[in-house]
Amino acid sequence: MAQLIDDVFAAALGNPYLDQKNDQAVIDLPEALSQKKGRLILSTDSFVISPLFFPGGDIGSLAVHGTVNDLAMSGGTPLYLTAGFILEEGFPLADLQKIVHSMAQAAEEAGVQIVTGDTKVVEKGKGDGLFINTAGVGVVPQTLSLSGDKLQVGDAVLINGTIGDHGISILSQRDALGFETEIKSDSSALNGLIADMIESAPDIHCLRDPTRGGVAATLNEVAQQSGVGIVLQEKALPLKSAVIGACELLGIDPLHSANEGKVLAFCPAAQAEALLACMRQHPLGQEAALIGHVIDDPHHFVQMETSFGGRRIVDWLVGEQLPRIC
Amino acid sequence: MAQLIDDVFAAALGNPYLDQKNDQAVIDLPEALSQKKGRLILSTDSFVISPLFFPGGDIGSLAVHGTVNDLAMSGGTPLYLTAGFILEEGFPLADLQKIVHSMAQAAEEAGVQIVTGDTKVVEKGKGDGLFINTAGVGVVPQTLSLSGDKLQVGDAVLINGTIGDHGISILSQRDALGFETEIKSDSSALNGLIADMIESAPDIHCLRDPTRGGVAATLNEVAQQSGVGIVLQEKALPLKSAVIGACELLGIDPLHSANEGKVLAFCPAAQAEALLACMRQHPLGQEAALIGHVIDDPHHFVQMETSFGGRRIVDWLVGEQLPRIC
Repeated sequence: MAQLIDDVFAAALGNPYLDQKNDQAVIDLPEALSQKKGRLILSTDSFVISPLFFPGGDIGSLAVHGTVNDLAMSGGTPLYLTAGFILEEGFPLADLQKIVHSMAQAAEEAGVQIVTGDTKVVEKGKGDGLFINTAGVGVVPQTLSLSGDKLQVGDAVLINGTIGDHGISILSQRDALGFETEIKSDSSALNGLIADMIESAPDIHCLRDPTRGGVAATLNEVAQQSGVGIVLQEKALPLKSAVIGACELLGIDPLHSANEGKVLAFCPAAQAEALLACMRQHPLGQEAALIGHVIDDPHHFVQMETSFGGRRIVDWLVGEQLPRIC
Repeated sequence: MAQLIDDVFAAALGNPYLDQKNDQAVIDLPEALSQKKGRLILSTDSFVISPLFFPGGDIGSLAVHGTVNDLAMSGGTPLYLTAGFILEEGFPLADLQKIVHSMAQAAEEAGVQIVTGDTKVVEKGKGDGLFINTAGVGVVPQTLSLSGDKLQVGDAVLINGTIGDHGISILSQRDALGFETEIKSDSSALNGLIADMIESAPDIHCLRDPTRGGVAATLNEVAQQSGVGIVLQEKALPLKSAVIGACELLGIDPLHSANEGKVLAFCPAAQAEALLACMRQHPLGQEAALIGHVIDDPHHFVQMETSFGGRRIVDWLVGEQLPRIC
């Protein structure tokens, strides 16, 4: 079994680092670091999504996108990933092959390398098919220091496209829910888009990907961290009609639905138009929108101006809307 | 639940990196790297050990030691860890607190920082209490390039102490086996010992920690990688009498039993005495021994000269002796 698994990984992911076959990968210093222009960025995520295959991706591509995006949110460049697999005994090798192939493809598209990995097997009934952890390393220029505590009153809030697609896509796959939709997960690597964004709006204060908990959770987090309020314009929110329909059916707020290929950007109002134009030129930002702005608010509320002219609080969701969404 | 977990981690592990509360940790470049004297090292391991608590450690300390050791086997310095937790719903918070505390202590003792983390929860019956992934980053001097393919005929083979303790300790805890022993796991961070070893024997060709599969698996791996044979002296193997007893009872070869605080060193014979003396001066090397040497062998066999004067092949174990040993 161990040999088979090794073969699967070597075939799909083989590169000079993995081929070192040592306990660790040894990597020459990225140019930006060796010239002392940058700092290291580190991130990790475990992926326990159910089902493993879903419209728009699978646990393998998601595990690459998720960590690439967490690194990219610093404004920096993701470079290397590690991968840890926890397999339940009896997991079909054909599925593993598909998933590892999908990781390899996602890594190639994102321009990162999976340089070292590990596999553990647990007994049947002690896992659930496959869990994947990825950790990532990258480099961010000394000149950038994006952070959730840097929002300023007046900042514009932008997003690169439609909200809630991943969450609704996964929900549609759960047997118990029994509804069908054409919605695909938006799972994708955002580092290319973000590199463009940083160039067009170098004073971006913060970038965040609204994954678990959705746009609502992320906005509440950064409002708290920065000690500000945020007001959204409901009319401005990019939403697929199928997502609106599914959310109405299920009684879910799309702002609570997870995204895996979206970035929220907070930047000075003066740079917002340039940033929006830049985002719309990228394939992953064609439906980008300016959805709100940062206000002074001692309560650090996130509010929404509704289409009917009222205002409502956009709260954190109490509890997890859906376990194992990523 | 998410809030509780965050509190547990913040209380035990809090440091300026974790406190950034962003999707990624941003780290100033280690001095050795910024002076262009080093290369990056990366490693990852998932830990699925059962039981979670065992004599000599728990899954938390093990998860730190395991990745610290994988990094240290390059001869370099482990610096930063990431931690990913997969919790089964209903896992006792008190146990989580103990385990995270134990991670924090192990990290402090090893001189590394846990800079970023992630937690996922799966439904009851879809996990087994707690799985932990750690990934690590470190730096290795440009002048060192230890590797499993660098063994030379004539090299001495050394180990820093008794063989098989971890495996037998875990076996003794499994209900089904119902035997009792005083054997503690040897789980420990070897980076301090290894720093001393590199200083005393700068021409070490390779360091490896004989974890899963034990000393036998590791020796066979490096013999294959380097295209050489290895001969062990049975009389020279450091073994606790309780381990010998348990192995006889269970029909296990201690060379197949896992270790979590042992390093196998392969160095030119001329440096072996100095290296052995250095190892014995370190608290984790007091029972260090020169256990064999590298020979020319087109079959790349690992053999053992037995106490009775014969020779036997020390083979890989077919299949895993014991699932979830780490």
